[in-house]
Amino acid sequence: MFQLNENYLKLPGSYLFSTIAKKAAAYRAEYPDRPLISLGIGDVTQPLALVIIEALHEAVDEMAKAETFHGYAPDLGYEFLRRAIAENDYAARGCSIAADEIFVSDGAKGDSANIQEIFSSDSRIAVCDPVYPVYVDSNVMAGRTGEYDAATGTWSKVIYMPCTAENGFAPALPDVTPDLIYLCFPNNPTGSAITKDQLQEWVRYASSVGAVIIYDAAYEAYISEENVPHSIYECEGARECAIELRSFSKNAGFTGTRLGFTVVPKDLKCNGVMLHSLWARRHGTKYNGAPYIIQKAGCAVYTPEGKAQIAEQVARYMENAKMIREALKESGYTVYGGVNAPYIWMKTPDGLTSWEFFDRLLNEANVIGTPGSGFGPSGEGYFRLTAFGNRENTKEALERIRRM
Amino acid sequence: MFQLNENYLKLPGSYLFSTIAKKAAAYRAEYPDRPLISLGIGDVTQPLALVIIEALHEAVDEMAKAETFHGYAPDLGYEFLRRAIAENDYAARGCSIAADEIFVSDGAKGDSANIQEIFSSDSRIAVCDPVYPVYVDSNVMAGRTGEYDAATGTWSKVIYMPCTAENGFAPALPDVTPDLIYLCFPNNPTGSAITKDQLQEWVRYASSVGAVIIYDAAYEAYISEENVPHSIYECEGARECAIELRSFSKNAGFTGTRLGFTVVPKDLKCNGVMLHSLWARRHGTKYNGAPYIIQKAGCAVYTPEGKAQIAEQVARYMENAKMIREALKESGYTVYGGVNAPYIWMKTPDGLTSWEFFDRLLNEANVIGTPGSGFGPSGEGYFRLTAFGNRENTKEALERIRRM
Repeated sequence: MFQLNENYLKLPGSYLFSTIAKKAAAYRAEYPDRPLISLGIGDVTQPLALVIIEALHEAVDEMAKAETFHGYAPDLGYEFLRRAIAENDYAARGCSIAADEIFVSDGAKGDSANIQEIFSSDSRIAVCDPVYPVYVDSNVMAGRTGEYDAATGTWSKVIYMPCTAENGFAPALPDVTPDLIYLCFPNNPTGSAITKDQLQEWVRYASSVGAVIIYDAAYEAYISEENVPHSIYECEGARECAIELRSFSKNAGFTGTRLGFTVVPKDLKCNGVMLHSLWARRHGTKYNGAPYIIQKAGCAVYTPEGKAQIAEQVARYMENAKMIREALKESGYTVYGGVNAPYIWMKTPDGLTSWEFFDRLLNEANVIGTPGSGFGPSGEGYFRLTAFGNRENTKEALERIRRM
Repeated sequence: MFQLNENYLKLPGSYLFSTIAKKAAAYRAEYPDRPLISLGIGDVTQPLALVIIEALHEAVDEMAKAETFHGYAPDLGYEFLRRAIAENDYAARGCSIAADEIFVSDGAKGDSANIQEIFSSDSRIAVCDPVYPVYVDSNVMAGRTGEYDAATGTWSKVIYMPCTAENGFAPALPDVTPDLIYLCFPNNPTGSAITKDQLQEWVRYASSVGAVIIYDAAYEAYISEENVPHSIYECEGARECAIELRSFSKNAGFTGTRLGFTVVPKDLKCNGVMLHSLWARRHGTKYNGAPYIIQKAGCAVYTPEGKAQIAEQVARYMENAKMIREALKESGYTVYGGVNAPYIWMKTPDGLTSWEFFDRLLNEANVIGTPGSGFGPSGEGYFRLTAFGNRENTKEALERIRRM
């Protein structure tokens, strides 16, 4: 009789967002006259920029004629998009990344979940705590994480790197040597960034211990401060030890349009074997390319008009972030993030747990956010709000919190 | 120091299509005045149907306004599409499949590669020989296939089920009991189908030995004969032992648009655990949904206009298939397939190997096809042509073969 992948059975239920949804639904049922505002989910609300819409229409029209119809895309992405990425995201920042080191995909979530596959099954992983759950769960499914301790919400073989106010949400180098290090900066959920010097220290460390950094830079478009790196390849030596994940979701509003890419430099090797070859093989075997029309839309992001239009969108979200930061501070809360990232990470007041504060915010302000403890044990006592709401709702939510 | 997934290193190079491309390129370089026609690749050539183009434009316009903008899709697919699939692909054929047993994806290639993940790492797999390489390679990457024998092109732990003219390209039940059975009917590459009774026998067998059938029905739209099942769920007992993979690539020309789905019935269980839950967990963790605009396009396929328009496209390809079959027969070749599938599987003449015939066709007719041996040892002595070319090229290719 066939058997299941027992690692899947070890996964605890994905309670965070379902519990939030249940609590919200219960509240709505009890108080149908009190409209809730969600600043909880990391989903965008502004429509796609005009230049992207035009590119989509144009590409759709190409699909309507035999002469310009596009069938199977190259597994690794169309050259036109890979070149635009190499020029604009890398060469323009002084990073040496070739077009054929870029693998176009349908988004960073999938890439961040799949990248572990090319590594040995006994690899030790290190993650920030709190953390985007996909990094850990994908390794649980692959059997790398040992046993789950429900009391602490941690896995026995995962190396957790606490990120709290005390260390400025910048993890310290781990005591135990990892094989894979997941870093996400600007960070989800803490909204914090690290400096180029800090990231360079990670690159130096990874090189010295023979680890690979999986660098999730999905939020790089939100960086507003100097000296915060947009790419890990701004650091010396990163081509030999780092893979970078990027997304069009947050810079260009592609959460429902789906496009991303992963960079695997050809200098990144293990015993002479390029990781690039393994990832290419994975793409070729398990993936069939992002849709042509979506890749054309991605290309529009890099035109002068595209850059201007998406910069406006990002600026608008960052005005929300500033509003949220300032309003919360005025109301006496301690807040972090929101300067180089669309996330505001606040300390819960009065010694409340993350979930207790969730309940208070829901009941007293009819506002929904995300309990920090849902992202890991070091998130306890924190709470995440996002700047992705529309302006009106964000203002109204802040007004309600002020009155609370 | 980090280590790689050593299973990836066991994979032999993916020589088939790269060798074809190299040979074609070398010929073009030597004889630039002799244009080659490819009937080799399974990619469509007709543009998207009008109703699909209109749906795409409409959905793009929705993405341009905040009120109708769509962010993250439901992991498992939009209800509107899942309902259309359940009604049209299943209820209409008397199959009891609920909308929430359907998982929308970006295509059957990825699903067929990923589905093995939810099973135990020591599962024994059985595949037809010849076979679509993704089924085997994805299991190689997961470490299930043992050692590779370069001389025979086979893996020590894979159960191969030969499909040749002698058994009508319908595999016999295996001697060794498998845990997972990959079946693709109508078949790529042989172009053959099996009857409902034959498929029912497989369902009965799988149930009796406790195996799961992974049924790839990507070519079901090409079925022209009665008594050939369009879905495995037409068979009694399949809800307890079968997963079905479907694609929009070949019925609606979505090879470059990317949409597919997988059906995991809730009755399919192992020790009381629904496989449905595991696949849902995988989707939720490693996937972020197909693009909204593509799902809307998929929905258009099920409208009355959509059905009529794609039926015309399929009919056009099948006229190609008929032309190829008849022309080859007239020229004295032995041909199979092409009746319920867009693939023609011919016996190589004069005792030539598949590659020797490839070279003859390239040199003497300037036509490119696919050597059967590239799909597995039992493909030796066969050759695949596809009906996906445009009419003019297909005619010209056949004329050249006739003169050969």
